[in-house]
Amino acid sequence: MSPRRAGRGRDGRLVAIGGGASEAVRGRVALVGAGPGDPELLTLKALKALQAAEVVVHDQLVPEEILALANPAARLIHVGKRKSRHSVPQDGINDLLVALARDGRTVVRLKGGDPFVFGRGGEELLACREAGVACEVVPGISAGLAAAASAGAPLTHRGLAQAVTFVTGHAAPKADGEGYGEPELDWTVLSRPNHTVVVYMGLSTAPGIAGRLIDAGRARSTPVLIVENASRPSERRIKTTLAGLPEAVAGLDGPAVLVIGEVAALADVEGLVDHAAANPTWRTA
Amino acid sequence: MSPRRAGRGRDGRLVAIGGGASEAVRGRVALVGAGPGDPELLTLKALKALQAAEVVVHDQLVPEEILALANPAARLIHVGKRKSRHSVPQDGINDLLVALARDGRTVVRLKGGDPFVFGRGGEELLACREAGVACEVVPGISAGLAAAASAGAPLTHRGLAQAVTFVTGHAAPKADGEGYGEPELDWTVLSRPNHTVVVYMGLSTAPGIAGRLIDAGRARSTPVLIVENASRPSERRIKTTLAGLPEAVAGLDGPAVLVIGEVAALADVEGLVDHAAANPTWRTA
Repeated sequence: MSPRRAGRGRDGRLVAIGGGASEAVRGRVALVGAGPGDPELLTLKALKALQAAEVVVHDQLVPEEILALANPAARLIHVGKRKSRHSVPQDGINDLLVALARDGRTVVRLKGGDPFVFGRGGEELLACREAGVACEVVPGISAGLAAAASAGAPLTHRGLAQAVTFVTGHAAPKADGEGYGEPELDWTVLSRPNHTVVVYMGLSTAPGIAGRLIDAGRARSTPVLIVENASRPSERRIKTTLAGLPEAVAGLDGPAVLVIGEVAALADVEGLVDHAAANPTWRTA
Repeated sequence: MSPRRAGRGRDGRLVAIGGGASEAVRGRVALVGAGPGDPELLTLKALKALQAAEVVVHDQLVPEEILALANPAARLIHVGKRKSRHSVPQDGINDLLVALARDGRTVVRLKGGDPFVFGRGGEELLACREAGVACEVVPGISAGLAAAASAGAPLTHRGLAQAVTFVTGHAAPKADGEGYGEPELDWTVLSRPNHTVVVYMGLSTAPGIAGRLIDAGRARSTPVLIVENASRPSERRIKTTLAGLPEAVAGLDGPAVLVIGEVAALADVEGLVDHAAANPTWRTA
């Protein structure tokens, strides 16, 4: 149904392409969600893509155990360091994927979680489309879903949450390149009860996010679940409240998600640290 | 860290339990996300659970191809018919899971998508906890993520969507038992631009949802992607706008998700029907 468009073939000449797939570029790209870290949370489709890959372009967040499942002949290219300026910029990754496909390679772009939930997969997909490179997307278990499952706290629940919003804790890197600014969000919206808010990459901005939600009217006693390294052997789960959140995140530095809302009170599994129990003032509305 | 609590053992006597796992009940329950339908979108962990199950309690939405992956000796129990009164009520399912575990069985409760995103998994988990039945949750690919991946429309995207909200299209069944009412949501919240709204089970209430979003200020021309039977061979993808949504859903009756927001305009794959192209009035703000 897509109109036919022009793209550039391997030799740089313009060629007609159709439906997002190229007739001129032999290689192809799969944007594959690696899930939250536990290799068992890969999908069968992701595993198959890894086994068929000639090149795997991966982030820092993808653990060795998952990379080990790739075709042994595959070339692994590491493009991202977490929270660092020393990683390949997004444009560079886009160009790399296109160049590899034009070189005829079967490429897997392996991303933590799901490519389309704060994974910047959309930018890579558009770059492939513009270049006439066939690009498939394999969804993955997003970290928010893994955190909820691990901690036994549903994201939606009858009487407690009719909706769940996923937001990212940081927007663009700060001008000095160190750390990230807070996202521009409508916090009033997210301050309603019966609405779960899942914050990705929110450790460094957690104190600000807690303050904004409280200012916007969400109760200080709103339960919050923090899951660091969800699904990995190093996973840590902490239950606190919005008021206790700034103290609760101190000392954490792994990738973490925050689950904010009444459902977080349902978290109850072996090894859960009840942080708010330590300070009654964190439990007051 | 969880306090020890009392639960009922297999013989009905109160027994001490700890951390949500029982020392008295031999059986156990895994709430397993089956994903959107494509067997390849099962996780390795879900597959392993299915192969170890003695009993699989499943919904109508889980296709035969996935049930075929279960241990051949497993008993399959079908508890849900889509949009029908003739399914087992939630309390009955909860009781069934507990009874099977008390009978010493290794039970998989297999649910379409993810157990904790509109899957009512929380209710089943709480029932198991109260009964002292060990209960693990295996996350699954939620239909919204699968729909986005299939159609090539990211749920978040730089400059277009900083947040994504998942809502359900229907709340409780209507009093007459036929069909469902509209959910009670803060539509103003969901009417902001730069915010993707993913509606689950929203076909029957789509016209109402479109109206409420438009009334709350979201542009009539806001792109909407409809994905019916995401990831299955029968998958259909339609691109329209909020204004065109009521007509676009006419004739669809499979399980479907709506992706509402600027990101839906990025959907561009083989077989995508551009519904709004047929009527210019659907494209006006």
